[in-house]
Amino acid sequence: MGCALKANMLQEWRKHFILEEGMLEVDCTSLTPEPVLKASGHVERFADWMVKDLKTGDCFRADHLIKNSIEKLLADKKTTADLKNELQDVLARLEGFDDKDMQAVISKYKFKSPITGNDLSEPVAFNLMFPTQIGPTGDFKAYLRPETAQGIFVNFKRLLEFNQSKLPFAAAQIGQGFRNEISPRQGLIRVREFTMCEIEHFVDPTDKSHPKFKKVADHVLTLFSACNQMDGNPAKEWKIGDAVTQGVVNNETLGYYMARCHQYLLKVGVDPRRLRFRQHLANEMAHYAQDCWDAEILTSYGWIECVGNADRACYDLRQHYKATNVKLVAEKVLPAAKNIDVVEAAPVMNILGKEFRQSAKKIQTVLSQLTPEQLAEVELELATNKLYNLKIDSETYPLTDKMLAVKKYSKTVYVEEIEPSVIEPSYGIGRVMYAVLEHAFRQREGDEQRCFLVLPPLVAPIKCSVLPISNNVVFEPIIELVREELARYDLSHKVDDSGNAIGRRYARTDEIGIPFGITIDFESEQKPHTVTLRHAESMQQIRLEISEVGRLLSDLSTGRQQWSDAQAKYPKFEANSDE
Amino acid sequence: MGCALKANMLQEWRKHFILEEGMLEVDCTSLTPEPVLKASGHVERFADWMVKDLKTGDCFRADHLIKNSIEKLLADKKTTADLKNELQDVLARLEGFDDKDMQAVISKYKFKSPITGNDLSEPVAFNLMFPTQIGPTGDFKAYLRPETAQGIFVNFKRLLEFNQSKLPFAAAQIGQGFRNEISPRQGLIRVREFTMCEIEHFVDPTDKSHPKFKKVADHVLTLFSACNQMDGNPAKEWKIGDAVTQGVVNNETLGYYMARCHQYLLKVGVDPRRLRFRQHLANEMAHYAQDCWDAEILTSYGWIECVGNADRACYDLRQHYKATNVKLVAEKVLPAAKNIDVVEAAPVMNILGKEFRQSAKKIQTVLSQLTPEQLAEVELELATNKLYNLKIDSETYPLTDKMLAVKKYSKTVYVEEIEPSVIEPSYGIGRVMYAVLEHAFRQREGDEQRCFLVLPPLVAPIKCSVLPISNNVVFEPIIELVREELARYDLSHKVDDSGNAIGRRYARTDEIGIPFGITIDFESEQKPHTVTLRHAESMQQIRLEISEVGRLLSDLSTGRQQWSDAQAKYPKFEANSDE
Repeated sequence: MGCALKANMLQEWRKHFILEEGMLEVDCTSLTPEPVLKASGHVERFADWMVKDLKTGDCFRADHLIKNSIEKLLADKKTTADLKNELQDVLARLEGFDDKDMQAVISKYKFKSPITGNDLSEPVAFNLMFPTQIGPTGDFKAYLRPETAQGIFVNFKRLLEFNQSKLPFAAAQIGQGFRNEISPRQGLIRVREFTMCEIEHFVDPTDKSHPKFKKVADHVLTLFSACNQMDGNPAKEWKIGDAVTQGVVNNETLGYYMARCHQYLLKVGVDPRRLRFRQHLANEMAHYAQDCWDAEILTSYGWIECVGNADRACYDLRQHYKATNVKLVAEKVLPAAKNIDVVEAAPVMNILGKEFRQSAKKIQTVLSQLTPEQLAEVELELATNKLYNLKIDSETYPLTDKMLAVKKYSKTVYVEEIEPSVIEPSYGIGRVMYAVLEHAFRQREGDEQRCFLVLPPLVAPIKCSVLPISNNVVFEPIIELVREELARYDLSHKVDDSGNAIGRRYARTDEIGIPFGITIDFESEQKPHTVTLRHAESMQQIRLEISEVGRLLSDLSTGRQQWSDAQAKYPKFEANSDE
Repeated sequence: MGCALKANMLQEWRKHFILEEGMLEVDCTSLTPEPVLKASGHVERFADWMVKDLKTGDCFRADHLIKNSIEKLLADKKTTADLKNELQDVLARLEGFDDKDMQAVISKYKFKSPITGNDLSEPVAFNLMFPTQIGPTGDFKAYLRPETAQGIFVNFKRLLEFNQSKLPFAAAQIGQGFRNEISPRQGLIRVREFTMCEIEHFVDPTDKSHPKFKKVADHVLTLFSACNQMDGNPAKEWKIGDAVTQGVVNNETLGYYMARCHQYLLKVGVDPRRLRFRQHLANEMAHYAQDCWDAEILTSYGWIECVGNADRACYDLRQHYKATNVKLVAEKVLPAAKNIDVVEAAPVMNILGKEFRQSAKKIQTVLSQLTPEQLAEVELELATNKLYNLKIDSETYPLTDKMLAVKKYSKTVYVEEIEPSVIEPSYGIGRVMYAVLEHAFRQREGDEQRCFLVLPPLVAPIKCSVLPISNNVVFEPIIELVREELARYDLSHKVDDSGNAIGRRYARTDEIGIPFGITIDFESEQKPHTVTLRHAESMQQIRLEISEVGRLLSDLSTGRQQWSDAQAKYPKFEANSDE
């Protein structure tokens, strides 16, 4: 059932985003060569701080250990009010702590291993990527991707071409992400392998307007802005149009995706009263990010981050450019031709090649990336000393004026290069699915034991049950007619002709979230054959011809019609079988 | 476009197999703990033979190297007819070669590295699984799964429960498989990461009949039996019912899946004239397998294995039982109660525990798995020597008659345990997709330059194009009406209002396999608004109201109606715009 629910949620995601917005879709590999993840910064920085039990070697995520240890102290009656205030303050700042901050807290409060009570190591960085090797030689290092986004960035040039070299455009990817969590927990919430849906929307950094923004401008979202969080104010309802106009949300494109995110989450069954968009605080956000809003959903585990909507500026593309010296830029036609002054390093490659062999290429790359200020310095050095010492990492390359000059000239340009900004909505589908299941959970009034799920028909694994009122053989040909009708409309269904009481069978189908039920009774034998259709949530029933059932259910399952439309059209059927 | 095609193929697979057959679906992780793959035999045996260039270390798959080297010799005019015959014979037997056979061939014909001409190493086994570690300690070994099947086997007990403990039932999984191929090649045909769809159908080994077999019995397949292959006869058309009756195909369940496989492949666009089912030869098949038929599709790379349909007997479940001592069996109610004689080893666990500590559990496991013959030997040893030396791997455990007895008694049983047989259809979706694209390729008669794809509407990424006859603004509101109509039926579509000549735009949409095109012309302005609908394959057009387009296209895209039905219902529209 879970697989079918997930498949339906993914299919709707594809329709809602990729098809409706005309996005490009890619399907990259999970195995990712190391250079890609070095460029993106993941090899160096995609890590959690971990502490170890000094005797047993048990590992704990440092921030989780501190949080749990503090919560234990706060719950302890012996803890003084002063200490509680102090600990509350640590908790509030924990998100921004580095290893030294955490070590200081662990030392100060003498936190130990929660399992053995043993002393703990200092926090060490633990990279969350799963390493492996590709190919038979063993010397081609790779990782399982921690996110799908990098596959889009490294394909940027081809994607831009597919879009006739025009900005803005968006590319999307649905696939597995892998993170070697130190302590996986909470069911589908923190797992080591999970399905992500990511969009990278590339846009001119000087114009982040969105052509379809006016369509969603009046859409109301619950926003929990950084200001509200700092001032201790609650989240507030905003029209997304007003939020962008008043600068609460950075720009139209980001706002557009937040509104579309809200629509998607509601479509698949998230309760809007348990959904908010929380802005990242300044210290939470990466230094390059412009703005970031997480869609958080309230579950029994608290508010869970399920979707990130971030404006990452030009960070990602620039990282890959730095690593490969392949420009990842778009061109914008200037309103008028323009004369510009060019200053650039002009290395003499054949001399450089003889002198520095394999390093020549690297020297050329670094020279081509020098800023105007650095070039002025190079020019001065070459003029005064006939030599410029170029430093790359820990190496120094002495470049003489035979090898290098600084050229200045002016040229007429008709286009300008722009480094696109990236707006990145990133969905953790497993987390959304978990929230949908919690929000769908119901108990029948007056009977707590009768639990059921109200899943939106759009994502329900099975759209309809088929229940003959008894297991009398006369129903068999009618069951077959109903099955054929449902199959014609690709409606997933489940026949239960077990002979159990009909009320018990209804309860069973309600439990697994089947939104509609077809009942075949003795009246069904008369021609034209009719059946009753039951709406699980309200337990109301209507009666209609078998030949009408497929179209109606197809419409109900895709939202083209609502149950109230069906009730208005077909006669009500009264039965006390649900009692 | 490829992502959408693949998503549609997977969605159809889910409908055709999982929904229509009422299968259980699971979604297991790609990361698989080592013990699972040790039990399945993959850690020990999932390897290819590899030879290395002795100087450069370049690696080659031994069988590929031999095949390519022989083909080069065969193409060489200087090769004598005798040698050619000899080499042809080697090629024919190559599939069954082990490392020694291959080494003999490489030595005899002095095959060298195809890149450098250097000598080659002897063949060494190279395991095709990608290794990694799970968790922070680094001592929990894991692999990326080489197939999805193992996830189903290790969940067998729960799946059986979900099926009310009844046989037969089938479980399916769609997901990534990973194989560290020595030399990936041929586009989507041999890749290191690929999407698989696998079914494990569990069935009573003494009754492999299938309740729905009669529905497919008259279905005609092209079968290339082992006999035909050995005798040099061509493949032959068979009704699958006859093939099972005459023992060509081992049993009904296997035959049923072959017929359903055939139906699926045709639905997604495989040309039936380029599809055959080839039976594995005795030396190709694993020793435990009962029968195996690969669906092979003819492409420009030759006949490519795209689907395996294998009867694997009880091998897989038994392997996991051996490794874990958890019985993976089903129960069958006996026609009548039965008295049986039981002989079993009765270890005295508290003595064993004191004597052998951690090994006691392992000893118990091995004792419980002894055969009646082995138990007779144990009984004899205990009676004569008061001691039985139990060997496990390289260890010997001396068990005294204080620790162990052999018990005999009789009991009445009402059910019997059965070890289910497994019928396994396994689809490589990337390979099928590649074949579909090749088979969909067409050129317009009389104009080789005008290439197009005839994809079945069911799987076509975009169902319909929307083309105003010119970029006149009067068409804009009508385009919007058409878009709304198409969106209501979830029909993927692409608007091209670029103002290029209509014929050129048709050609463009034909190239990417859009099966239908809506054209908006000046007649469309009159109310009720009408448009023309063009069938890309035949280039014929009909005219209909916009309000009818959604339903019709939805029916055409799911196969509820054919183009000929639409032609019969709506007036033909004549235009020479395709010229």
